[in-house]
Amino acid sequence: MSKLKTFTKEIKKVLIANRGEIATRIIRACKELDIKTVAIYSEADAKSIYVKKADEAYLIPGDPIQAYLNYFRIVDLAKQTKCDAIHSGYGFLSENPEFAEYCWKQGIVFIGPHPDHIALFGDKMAAKKKMRELGVPVLPGSDEPISDIKKAKKIADEIGYPVILKAAFGGGGRGMRIVREESEFEDLFKSAFNEAKKFFGRGDVFIEKYVENPRHIEIQIMADKYGNVVHLGERDCSIQRRHQKVVEIARSPTLNEDVKRELYRTSVKAMFKVGYENVGTIEYLVDEKDNFYFIEMNTRLQVEHTVTEMVTGIDIVQQMIKIAQGEKLGFLQEDITMRGYAIEFRVNAEDPKRNFAPSVGAITSYHSPGGPGVRVDAAVYKDYVIPPYYDSMIAKLSVWALTWDQVVNRARRALDEFIVRGVPTNLPLLRAIVRDEDFIKGKFTTRYIEEKLPTFNLEDKTADLEDLVAAIAGAIAAYHKI
Amino acid sequence: MSKLKTFTKEIKKVLIANRGEIATRIIRACKELDIKTVAIYSEADAKSIYVKKADEAYLIPGDPIQAYLNYFRIVDLAKQTKCDAIHSGYGFLSENPEFAEYCWKQGIVFIGPHPDHIALFGDKMAAKKKMRELGVPVLPGSDEPISDIKKAKKIADEIGYPVILKAAFGGGGRGMRIVREESEFEDLFKSAFNEAKKFFGRGDVFIEKYVENPRHIEIQIMADKYGNVVHLGERDCSIQRRHQKVVEIARSPTLNEDVKRELYRTSVKAMFKVGYENVGTIEYLVDEKDNFYFIEMNTRLQVEHTVTEMVTGIDIVQQMIKIAQGEKLGFLQEDITMRGYAIEFRVNAEDPKRNFAPSVGAITSYHSPGGPGVRVDAAVYKDYVIPPYYDSMIAKLSVWALTWDQVVNRARRALDEFIVRGVPTNLPLLRAIVRDEDFIKGKFTTRYIEEKLPTFNLEDKTADLEDLVAAIAGAIAAYHKI
Repeated sequence: MSKLKTFTKEIKKVLIANRGEIATRIIRACKELDIKTVAIYSEADAKSIYVKKADEAYLIPGDPIQAYLNYFRIVDLAKQTKCDAIHSGYGFLSENPEFAEYCWKQGIVFIGPHPDHIALFGDKMAAKKKMRELGVPVLPGSDEPISDIKKAKKIADEIGYPVILKAAFGGGGRGMRIVREESEFEDLFKSAFNEAKKFFGRGDVFIEKYVENPRHIEIQIMADKYGNVVHLGERDCSIQRRHQKVVEIARSPTLNEDVKRELYRTSVKAMFKVGYENVGTIEYLVDEKDNFYFIEMNTRLQVEHTVTEMVTGIDIVQQMIKIAQGEKLGFLQEDITMRGYAIEFRVNAEDPKRNFAPSVGAITSYHSPGGPGVRVDAAVYKDYVIPPYYDSMIAKLSVWALTWDQVVNRARRALDEFIVRGVPTNLPLLRAIVRDEDFIKGKFTTRYIEEKLPTFNLEDKTADLEDLVAAIAGAIAAYHKI
Repeated sequence: MSKLKTFTKEIKKVLIANRGEIATRIIRACKELDIKTVAIYSEADAKSIYVKKADEAYLIPGDPIQAYLNYFRIVDLAKQTKCDAIHSGYGFLSENPEFAEYCWKQGIVFIGPHPDHIALFGDKMAAKKKMRELGVPVLPGSDEPISDIKKAKKIADEIGYPVILKAAFGGGGRGMRIVREESEFEDLFKSAFNEAKKFFGRGDVFIEKYVENPRHIEIQIMADKYGNVVHLGERDCSIQRRHQKVVEIARSPTLNEDVKRELYRTSVKAMFKVGYENVGTIEYLVDEKDNFYFIEMNTRLQVEHTVTEMVTGIDIVQQMIKIAQGEKLGFLQEDITMRGYAIEFRVNAEDPKRNFAPSVGAITSYHSPGGPGVRVDAAVYKDYVIPPYYDSMIAKLSVWALTWDQVVNRARRALDEFIVRGVPTNLPLLRAIVRDEDFIKGKFTTRYIEEKLPTFNLEDKTADLEDLVAAIAGAIAAYHKI
């Protein structure tokens, strides 16, 4: 650990170093804790909901992305507006250890883990090494970035095929190759290296055992400043498109209960040994034989925290703030109960018929679902103009019910109620997923969307259907005969 | 019991004999059970949300209220559209035993209790008599309508003062008088009698022991066709304005646990003995010494069922349909768990500054709250025009959290997020309630609003606040200095 000393103080005002739905989410938590909020926004975000909901909001002119990344400026604003703390949500500065450290050094509470833990788990190699030491199963692979092809081949041969090559200094699928046989190795290594070099400046790769048809299971961890660590159960985030999560589920409807228990135990024990604090998520791959392997840890609030909130009833964002101001966890592990099942759907402004290209422009019609077991965390409204600079996620729909069957039915109903017009969205994909037999049975791996996509009908039928209903109603005109 | 035989059949299509938010609520339950829906609507309701959401919708021209009361027509439409069943929500036909009987006789499943039970509990005197026989504590009072003043006085003297006089053939507070002393009796009897006669055609009254500062506690009951009866806990509905519920809470945050248990036991036992089926709500007054007295039973879905759904996780409307089609209850009493606390707020289009006069007209701006623990059951949207013919309730906001303190904070946050413009609403009243110290402490009786109203500030500040935030944001214009 570095010598950086963190501190606690009562949090009365928070600056939110983020935008969109997660800024609104944090404002809601603060309001419920009677904490004042300061929002920041780029010119492109001037008409966002969160800007209206915050107690104060400040424009950061200039580059629309730098607005949320220039941390000297952001911390200075926090000081000028007399904020006690900063919450950085997910993305942007949330996993930047220099930013967290700078907050502390400037007397601002960083709502999250110690900067050393952000740094440790941000370095994927160091994280794997640490987790292996702590007794967490980790995928066999290279311990360091490799650029030499002979050395690489030797490691791959030792691990045994299939292996996966991943860019050591980048992500997002660039420079990633699956090598199924020894004979393919040299060609694929070269192409991975060249692609990585092109995108990230360095071609070095990691080599890792490749798991066929894995499930992505992650454990939500919560810990206070006094060594108390609990888990809030697992999420199944297998349903991804190009390594981006699309649908997330708590609890897993099909994962073996013994495996779940072992994942909980392993995760809590590791975090206890590390001395972790605040919230974090440990991500695992689970193979077809129910072996699990640590892949990475996210040292921040996750997009998909909503489903864990629904099954446990615990407000994770409020807990982050309470932990940061030095409160002990108000519950023991045995007080935390998991009830029912929750599914989150990421509603993205992207066009399924144009290979999910991001959509920008004005939303001409917006109607969000309601009723029992439905939660909406939205960043948009009618007449809102989606700017081209940011992530395409415009809303999260989370549904809950007591049983898996019920939650799938509720998801179908709620997705059908959701109306977004003016820009194409991925709602047709989400609607196809909840009608798919394998999804309904809880059968999905990280290859789910890749395999299913060609079979899905992604026409947006809701508009037509709605017009049809109106037409029928109109044609009947008056109910005279009866 | 009458000779009317009910029957069961698989329900594939349901006609909804209601309007507004409860029609939408029932459509949602049907969609989640993969059941088709038929809506009916008056000309005034042609642009309602529920008309759009139903699979089919039929205009019933003519009188806007009769549209939902003319049951010959409604049952005929159900037959013509090949519906298996009718759900009548609350109000309108929902507690009309002739309607229920007519449904059965026409081969349509009435989703609710046996018509005999609707009739029994619809007759308030008969209901009290029956409940007394079943061992349920009932308020001392006259067993029959009284018109003779001498007879009335004798009964009042026997019961002991204070007593309450209630119109025997009406409701809604008309013909109701509280007599605190013997000397007042004759004058108040005469005025009650005359008012009742004027409004209901008959002046007869009931005389009943008057409970000072009572709490209104009701027990939600659910029973299948095979004699299995469970309770889903209590709701505290003490917060009323002129005998109309305004805020409803599950579970009661302050009622003694032993009293709760006795209420559960008493209620389940009575329903078991009566052979009740489907859902119902038994309403009690609880006095300052925790004695409880049966007041009436509602043989239908309640407006406030949402809060029970939130704490138990059980979908009450889906259960009604399952019971009606002959399914056994899928859970035992011990499977039902109560988690956290939920509060429902009735958002009414009425003007707190004009003595809560109903508001009609167009909604010019509408933004409903979202995020964790928030459920909205709304009947309106931006540009919707509220017709003058119906109940003023335009939306129900229900909030849930793990603890009482949290749910009050969440309620405050969610009510502050709720924006309805164009027509005055009671939102300022609801916002005042969640800021009141007694409410926060869980201290309220049926006299709460009457007592608190003069102390509440009912200005609608949100509009100003929002403008202020926008003004500040605009004035700062650009954040150049830092």
